[in-house]
Amino acid sequence: MSNPPPPARPLAIRTKDALERLASEVDAWVSTASADGTPYLVPLSFLWTGTTLILSTASKNPTSLNLQANPQLHLAIGGTRDVVLVTGTAERFTPTQEQGDAFAEKSGFDPRALKATYPFFEVTPVRIQSWREANELEGRDLMLDGRWLS
Amino acid sequence: MSNPPPPARPLAIRTKDALERLASEVDAWVSTASADGTPYLVPLSFLWTGTTLILSTASKNPTSLNLQANPQLHLAIGGTRDVVLVTGTAERFTPTQEQGDAFAEKSGFDPRALKATYPFFEVTPVRIQSWREANELEGRDLMLDGRWLS
Repeated sequence: MSNPPPPARPLAIRTKDALERLASEVDAWVSTASADGTPYLVPLSFLWTGTTLILSTASKNPTSLNLQANPQLHLAIGGTRDVVLVTGTAERFTPTQEQGDAFAEKSGFDPRALKATYPFFEVTPVRIQSWREANELEGRDLMLDGRWLS
Repeated sequence: MSNPPPPARPLAIRTKDALERLASEVDAWVSTASADGTPYLVPLSFLWTGTTLILSTASKNPTSLNLQANPQLHLAIGGTRDVVLVTGTAERFTPTQEQGDAFAEKSGFDPRALKATYPFFEVTPVRIQSWREANELEGRDLMLDGRWLS
């Protein structure tokens, strides 16, 4: 058995921690589903804009195909015992020059420079949850219906 | 920019590494889809039996509900830059006493002892992939159609 976990963090601290993770983490686990309901999971680099996440993946990859058929996604940042989980919808879009530059700098790859078509997607969060261990499952909602809780 | 990644591992080493991760890691990112195609992602503890993975989650949780409507899942073990990805199907089942004990010891929770119904699922892998960085995307298949490649 592991040691008892630290006390559950209050909402304000969890929100601050989640925002820091969104700003600093490079990769997310991105879960989508195909038109026929086949789940697909893959790690992708992302950029947090302050209100949305920007992703990019080749147009022939399952994540791209799935999101064009079904814009719903569920993505996770962090470890399995320190989770930030984002439920949202993704829309294909063209980033600004500044966003594209920031994405390239953070992720180490610039989709705009690649021969294969690498569309960008902007993910609008609808729900954000965060927890570390089982004692934080209660109170894990940080955002509901697109609004940060307070 | 990060340092160049180490050379790509040959298949035999990747397979050995993946089997070690399956045996030693406690948690997996589990991606499922609901009957209406909504993706759902959550970390769950698992036990590797040598040929299958055993999971357990409360019967009212989305993962349980999803798997009973659609047995397909995609799960990931490890970090986003050292991935073992398993595509498979899950079936509700009753573990042996020995499997249940091993699951409880590894995960730190014993679903058999909980008041809420915590069904077990046995995941049969159909495809297993593993890679670290982009230079390992080629050759990432370790298992196809349920058979380890060699």
